[in-house]
This record gives sequence, C-alpha cells and structure tokens, in this order.
Amino acid sequence: MERVYNFSAGPAVLPEEVLREAADEMMNYRGCGMSVMEMSHRSKMFDDIIAETEQDFRDLLHIPDNYKVLFLQGGASLQFAMIPMNLMKNRVADYIVTGQWAKKAWQEASKYGKANKIASSEDQTFTYIPDCSDLPISPDADYVYICENNTIYGTKYKKLPNTKGKILVSDVSSCFLSEPADVTKYGIMYGGVQKNIGPAGMVISVIRDDLITEDVLPGTPVMMSFKTHADANSMYNTPNCYCIYICGKVFKWLKAMGGLEVMKERNEKKAAILYDFLDESRLFRGTVRKEDRSLMNVPFVIGDKDMEAKFVKEAAQQGLVNLKGHRTVGGMRASIYNAMPMEGVKKLVAFMKEFEKENI
Amino acid sequence: MERVYNFSAGPAVLPEEVLREAADEMMNYRGCGMSVMEMSHRSKMFDDIIAETEQDFRDLLHIPDNYKVLFLQGGASLQFAMIPMNLMKNRVADYIVTGQWAKKAWQEASKYGKANKIASSEDQTFTYIPDCSDLPISPDADYVYICENNTIYGTKYKKLPNTKGKILVSDVSSCFLSEPADVTKYGIMYGGVQKNIGPAGMVISVIRDDLITEDVLPGTPVMMSFKTHADANSMYNTPNCYCIYICGKVFKWLKAMGGLEVMKERNEKKAAILYDFLDESRLFRGTVRKEDRSLMNVPFVIGDKDMEAKFVKEAAQQGLVNLKGHRTVGGMRASIYNAMPMEGVKKLVAFMKEFEKENI
Repeated sequence: MERVYNFSAGPAVLPEEVLREAADEMMNYRGCGMSVMEMSHRSKMFDDIIAETEQDFRDLLHIPDNYKVLFLQGGASLQFAMIPMNLMKNRVADYIVTGQWAKKAWQEASKYGKANKIASSEDQTFTYIPDCSDLPISPDADYVYICENNTIYGTKYKKLPNTKGKILVSDVSSCFLSEPADVTKYGIMYGGVQKNIGPAGMVISVIRDDLITEDVLPGTPVMMSFKTHADANSMYNTPNCYCIYICGKVFKWLKAMGGLEVMKERNEKKAAILYDFLDESRLFRGTVRKEDRSLMNVPFVIGDKDMEAKFVKEAAQQGLVNLKGHRTVGGMRASIYNAMPMEGVKKLVAFMKEFEKENI
Repeated sequence: MERVYNFSAGPAVLPEEVLREAADEMMNYRGCGMSVMEMSHRSKMFDDIIAETEQDFRDLLHIPDNYKVLFLQGGASLQFAMIPMNLMKNRVADYIVTGQWAKKAWQEASKYGKANKIASSEDQTFTYIPDCSDLPISPDADYVYICENNTIYGTKYKKLPNTKGKILVSDVSSCFLSEPADVTKYGIMYGGVQKNIGPAGMVISVIRDDLITEDVLPGTPVMMSFKTHADANSMYNTPNCYCIYICGKVFKWLKAMGGLEVMKERNEKKAAILYDFLDESRLFRGTVRKEDRSLMNVPFVIGDKDMEAKFVKEAAQQGLVNLKGHRTVGGMRASIYNAMPMEGVKKLVAFMKEFEKENI
C-alpha cells in the first residue's frame, strides 16, 4: 500500500519531508558516523540539535526572553500533577472543564489543593466552550487552567478566558503551532508533541520565568520541579533526544511553509472544506456548536452505528484511515493537523459525497 | 565519514541492522501506509508492536508470570521518586551507594522517609563494590536499593547483596540484557533503555506483582503509581511509541544473536581484550578493583591530562569516538555495550598499543 491519509488524533501524520530526511540520516547523521539515536546528549552535536530546535520553536511563536522553553517527558498527564506542584502556592486553582483531559487535570490538581471547577460544558457532552468572559475566578487562585483545543470533542477556545488578572495555564496539545498565539497572555502554555508536532514521548512547556521557583509543594520529586529542568536547559537527565530531533525538523518545515500565519490560513481553508460539506450534507453532521469548532479535530456522525462502521471501513479501503470517532463520542473524527495535506481533506470530502449518494 | 566505533556511555551505539530496518520502514511500516511515529498507540498495529516487544523482552530474561513489565517515561531519575512513592509503606529503605546515580536515588528517597545509607564506596571514589554479605539491613526496611552497574565508575556487583529477606530494588540501566539474570531475586529490576537497549526516553521496569498496589504515599501523581501503568499495560497515556518499536527490534536482534547466555560470553570476551591490555600496559591503567570490573563500562587513565586529551583526540581521528571519561573521574572511558562489535574493541586496543609505543 502507498502512503495513506492518516486522520489519527495522535500520534498523527507527520510531514513526508521530515520522515524522508530522518530515514536518510538514520545510519549517519551529517557525516558524524552515527545515528542521532546513538548520540550522547552531552555531545556538541546534540547540543547543536537541541539549541536549534528550541530557537526555531521560539521563532515560530515569537516567544519573549522572559519565557523558558522546557522539553519534558511523561506527557500532559504528568503535567496535570507537575503544574499544581509548582504553582499552587495558595493551594487554590480554578479549572474550566471542557473535556476529558481538562477533567483529568482538574481531578489530579484536587490532590494538591482546592481545585475549583468554575465552568464546564459536560452538560452537553462537551460540544461547546462555555462563556468565559465573567467567571467566578477565586480571589486567591494561583492560576486558571484550560485545555484550549479538545481533541476528543472537537472544540476550541476562540477567545481566551478572562482570568481577571490570574495566571492562565493552557494545555495546547492538539492545537500546538496550528496558528499564531500571543504567548504573553499565558503563564504556561504546554502540550504533548504527539499530535501536531512530532512523535510521542515529549511535552514542550513554555513557562514565564517568574513562575519557575524553588518554592514547590513538599514531596515534589526533583524531576517534577520546573526549576530542575530550567536550570539544566532540559538536560538534567537524558531527554527524549530523537523526539527533539524530529520536532526540530518539523519546526524547519513550518518555517519553510511560511510560519504560523500561513499555517493558520492553510488550516482554515482545510477545515472549511470539511465543515462546509458537513453543513450541507443530508447524511453527515458535525457535533460541535459552530462558533467553537476546532480547526484540528472534526467529529461528525451519521447517527446510525452500522452505517458509520461501514463508512469507516470503506474509507480505509480508499486509503483514508483512522476515521473512527473516540469511544466516548462515537461516530467519526477527522484530525486534520498541520501535516495533513489539503489533498487529504479533499479526498475525504469527495469520498463522503460519494458515500452519501450511495447510502441515502 | 563512515560509521564510527562509538564508545559513548549513553545514549550509545545500536546494532546497525536495527537502524537499517528502522530507516527502511520509516515512510511505510510493513505496507500499512505510515511510519510507526504516526501510528495511533490505540491501533491494532501498534498493539502488536508493544505486545511482541514485551514478549521478546520476557523471553530474553525468562521473566515469570508474576512479574509485570512496564514501559515508563522520565528516565531512572523519575524512578528515584516513583520507587519510594510506591514501596515505602514503613517509610524506611536501605540504600547502598556505589556511585552518583545510587546517591541521587538515595537523596531523592530521603524526601519520602528514612533512607539509610547502609554501605558506600565513596571513600575511594566509587572504584569498588562494598562487601554486601552481612550489612546492617533495617528490620523495618521496605526495600534495599542498589545500582547494579555503575556507568560512571565502571563497577558491577558480581554477587547481589544479602538483603536478609528484604525486597531488592536494582537499577540495571547500564547492564540491562548484557547477561542472564535471575529475575526472581528482585522485587524491582529497572533501567533506562538508552544505554544497552535503545534510544533515550524510556525506562523498562520489571516489578513483582504483589508490589503493585493502590497503597501509595499521599500526593503520589496518578502517573507515578505503578498500578496506573500496570492496569493499562503501559498505555494509560501515550507511551514513547517509537522507542518501544526500536527496543523491540533490539530484542529480536538479541534473540537472533543467541540470547543473553551468548551475549554474556561475547561481552566477557570483548571486555577481556581491553582489560587484559590495561593490565599489561605501561601507559594506561584501569581504575577499578579487578573483581568489581564492569563488562560494559571500562574507565582507564594515563595520569597525565595533556596526554589523555591527545589520546582522545587522536582516537577520534581513527573513528574511535566518545572515549573521554566522565568529568568526575577524568581520563578515558570505553563503554562497550551489547551493540559494540568485537572489531571495535580490537581496533581500540590496537590503537592504544600504537599510542603507547609512540608516547612512552
């Protein structure tokens, strides 16, 4: 089989150019006689790789100097504890629960202090983003937490919450680098890279430097203190070197594409092809309130389980794979991250039209 | 430059066959149309990869059914906290400190209870393994902790400590799969894979199943409970999928080589080539007490910093790279893991002989 169009929610499609370069360099990285996988993380060669990777990432997001960039292991799930361990000085934080990941983050934070659920969209299966313009922010909240793009449910904050001066912490895993972002509005912007950036096994966290202190909760492991990693430029211990290397290639690819402004336009066009069809289809329909639709994750349903199974199966036969929806939502989901070509979405919609004609 | 002989202590040399296969499969894994990096960890395809990887690992070490195998992120450094968080029911543990990593593990455990240093070789810069036949094991110790092969100092336990019935926890990062081991002697045998197994970014932990309980210390993050990962077969969240895949290939390679019995013979032969020369050399000498010498990490010195720098530089020009010793020991260190070919060690010794002739 040729390369497919892979609509997986993560780990997910990567740019072909990136994979091709990685394959070419596998036995011998730029004439150094070894693979990046075999390289000491303390070597000059790897030092250049990690430094360039960080710089390209900073360039893409225009990250100011008073923000640190950390490459961490353990996924967003470990951050759910690491964030309160580092930030919960008053042992109070406010959580806006718009999906499974925000909920897990909130539950985990409850171990370390008073984690208030100040808003939620669980009443309608997380199909919308609540109005966050005037929420009851706790006066002593150490931070306000959101999950900015909800992979499972296909929603995205189009406007950041009004935190009334409190620090905003945002999990951007599934919209990371999909469009420009004003980093200065965040205390922490972090995400797992395995959706829109690179292979699984790493989180990138962008943290305002005044939030990186020795004053962590008692019992915080050395490895879960932001300061440990910030002081060591993410090399307190051996990082996920190969993942850093692949992410670096993706950043070069994004720069070559024209940066995040161009990616945003491209992603809007791509998503519109799919959403426009969903809005006019007599068979398929989107599940998310229009104004909260994600550019990255597009869930849709037919409303008939057998028909949906048939769709997913026949799509796969056409090389359109991983379209099955998350088990908690059902139906279908097309994740159309940065690396999904326009052609992939066009082919998907063409197939949906054909399927509709034959099955209505 | 051709492929070099890479004596790095970790990340370290991998079998060429493994890298070649990974390169070949990069764009399209076995006709599935995508790279393993792009594959959902919930897919049937990845499920097969992780299941086969675990089974091959179990086969190599003859792991009994009452031991779980976990693939974890965060490196050994995170285990330094995770182990006490899961095992310190009495808040007491005994540590044998034979190097920097054992020391860090001991320091970290001290956060969670009474971590007793019951033996140490720090008095002689960790150049030996203390007599562990009759140590003052604490009557209420939850476990006894060792680092079995000391990467920096080049020592290895040739006999496991007499724990007087207490659970043995061992960090085997730098001797993992270098020879057969009797898993039943351990409560936990764990190691970072980036030395003798695969690329950086993962720990494999082999844990006797009665040690995996819900009864963890208060404040233990979900992600740091063994039970979380055991219940989910290491897929509570997205694991380091690509690392699992590469490790799987290394396990196949080890099986094809004849398994750990054969690897042990081969490693003994390889190490003997180097140690025999060090014992007869008039210029170089090993730094470790003979009976405690590691088969994997061989530190040696000349005793003259300029001459040592010259040696490292000229060796590199011959394609013998990463021979500089750890900054805390100085001199040189040759890490000769499973994947280092016999030829590499022969070439190193031939070069050392030549260097000795010219510089004595």
